[in-house]
Amino acid sequence: MLERFKVPKQDRVYVQQDRIRQATHDIFRHVGVDEQGAKASTDVLIVNDLRGVESHGVSNGLRRYVSEYNAGTLNGAPSFDIEHETATTARVNANNALGTHVGPWAMELAIEKAAKSGMGAVSVHSSGHLAGCGYYAMMAAEVDMVGHCMTAGGANQTVPTWGAKPVMGTNPIAYAAPAGEMPPFLFDVATTQVANNKIGLSRRVGASILPGWIADLEGKPIMEEVPAPDTGDYYLLHIGGTRENGSHKGFGFALMNEIICNGFTGLGSGPVGGNKHGGHFFMAYQVEAFTDLQKFKQDMDDLLRYIAAVPPADGFERVVYAGMLEAEEEERRTRDGIPYHREVVEWFESYCAEAGIDCDLR
Amino acid sequence: MLERFKVPKQDRVYVQQDRIRQATHDIFRHVGVDEQGAKASTDVLIVNDLRGVESHGVSNGLRRYVSEYNAGTLNGAPSFDIEHETATTARVNANNALGTHVGPWAMELAIEKAAKSGMGAVSVHSSGHLAGCGYYAMMAAEVDMVGHCMTAGGANQTVPTWGAKPVMGTNPIAYAAPAGEMPPFLFDVATTQVANNKIGLSRRVGASILPGWIADLEGKPIMEEVPAPDTGDYYLLHIGGTRENGSHKGFGFALMNEIICNGFTGLGSGPVGGNKHGGHFFMAYQVEAFTDLQKFKQDMDDLLRYIAAVPPADGFERVVYAGMLEAEEEERRTRDGIPYHREVVEWFESYCAEAGIDCDLR
Repeated sequence: MLERFKVPKQDRVYVQQDRIRQATHDIFRHVGVDEQGAKASTDVLIVNDLRGVESHGVSNGLRRYVSEYNAGTLNGAPSFDIEHETATTARVNANNALGTHVGPWAMELAIEKAAKSGMGAVSVHSSGHLAGCGYYAMMAAEVDMVGHCMTAGGANQTVPTWGAKPVMGTNPIAYAAPAGEMPPFLFDVATTQVANNKIGLSRRVGASILPGWIADLEGKPIMEEVPAPDTGDYYLLHIGGTRENGSHKGFGFALMNEIICNGFTGLGSGPVGGNKHGGHFFMAYQVEAFTDLQKFKQDMDDLLRYIAAVPPADGFERVVYAGMLEAEEEERRTRDGIPYHREVVEWFESYCAEAGIDCDLR
Repeated sequence: MLERFKVPKQDRVYVQQDRIRQATHDIFRHVGVDEQGAKASTDVLIVNDLRGVESHGVSNGLRRYVSEYNAGTLNGAPSFDIEHETATTARVNANNALGTHVGPWAMELAIEKAAKSGMGAVSVHSSGHLAGCGYYAMMAAEVDMVGHCMTAGGANQTVPTWGAKPVMGTNPIAYAAPAGEMPPFLFDVATTQVANNKIGLSRRVGASILPGWIADLEGKPIMEEVPAPDTGDYYLLHIGGTRENGSHKGFGFALMNEIICNGFTGLGSGPVGGNKHGGHFFMAYQVEAFTDLQKFKQDMDDLLRYIAAVPPADGFERVVYAGMLEAEEEERRTRDGIPYHREVVEWFESYCAEAGIDCDLR
């Protein structure tokens, strides 16, 4: 993440992962989530926080999930119904499970299918927020497969190239691939200039929005640096920002995501159907179905080392690939704790006090 | 394509597709390509030209392929050896076939596997230029599957985010998906701001290069509008251009492409190994392995119609999705002929005259 999104130094409270894990787990249980779901969702969110992906950790997510469970829009004890299945594929009705609840289960199913058949893919509908896609792709990399995950969550946020009305959500795409000695490749991006969560983060940390990141409500890209606007006062732009700078490429990746995530679930088009929660897609490629695994991992090491050794351009410190900083951050935060905004820690403490949860974060 | 890349009106010679097809086929045969290869390559190049993707048609490609066949770096009568195979996957040694020669065969194999097993994927090494990836992805859409194709052709052209030395090529990615009544989704983009071929096209048509499209030889993004530089005087930038504008996203998509195209072929890293011709990857998803095909196509129509009906932002005529303009262009050019630069037509005529090929383009 760019420096501007990070919690300012004076507002940081470092929390050890076991403490925030326990509190998060207990809060999920308190709002009626079953034990498997509480474990799964806690791991997704805290691993995101450990990797420095705080836009998809507990800070932005947990409050929202709690209120969705309390409102009954999320189901804390869902069954995962396989509606259609082949040796390589499955389509699943998650019965309003949180995405972080069904996601690890669905990716595991894709991995099992890939282990038997070379490739496996699972589409999931009727499920809430996935909290990014990187965690799930990495599940495959951790068992020496290439992982791929997408979600078409949240329609009507992003204007298409040349358009004045929003159509799709941030439609993120993730891939992960294992290496031998180098940190694995872990790529997880919104198909917009920035994720919507980052606009929220910017408001919290007082960061500004750069030219070409968002559009006004007439679809015109805002080409000056501006303070983070309120929800409802802007639309997102696809990767590229403007047509001249390639926004049709970001738009096309987003549409591919929409077609696979919503089309392959039978859910139908998110924007047209007004689906607040789009479908998810989880996929695993077994490396050995194509080539020798040890050779693949050796090639990965050679490639990733080569990239990390590229001399930086003037004004920059070094060259990194997707997953490298995340691996370094995970090591650092596992040791030193996760730097949450004090306001987040205070929310945990006050929630736990009211709910009668024994919560010791500091 | 942007208007700036099109052949200027006064330089256009309209050629009917059957005439340019015959001449292209005969030239391939003349340089020793077998009948299957001549047919396959001709169809790829002319369909690209019909769809308005002239950066990957005969104008930029054919001269280069002819000289590669004449130099013996391309094999006109290759066998395609399956080195490893499962029900869903295959790895193929193309024995120095041109990409447009082996590509249709490899995508057909992926489609056959998907028809039997839900998904199919084929990685190909030891093969030349693929001429874009869209043609192959569309082969799947034409039989009601979702198609995906990538190639890691050409290392050492593109600087990674913050880097001063080029690592990867333009690493294009394509997806296609069928609809019912609407033109199919057909998305085919380089993971750079512009494809290298477009720099060549710009030189030919006298178009300039926009800010953030390329970097100087120290890796610094050129942020002014400049004339198209000569080969060797610039590096390409990944989608986004600069880190603030999201170039790490384009870089990540390129690296994913590199890992799958070169890793899954056993070819090893392109930049490290100095592979001039990277691997290709062809994949098909059977829609019915996930959901009902008719429902999927109806959902596609609903979604694509919705996008095409989005009101344009101020200053723009209409909103389009990837594949829409290509379908309109294909209809127009099938009727009116393909507008080639007169210099291209003159090359055909002079080549045919020297080779004794009966060629009637006008």
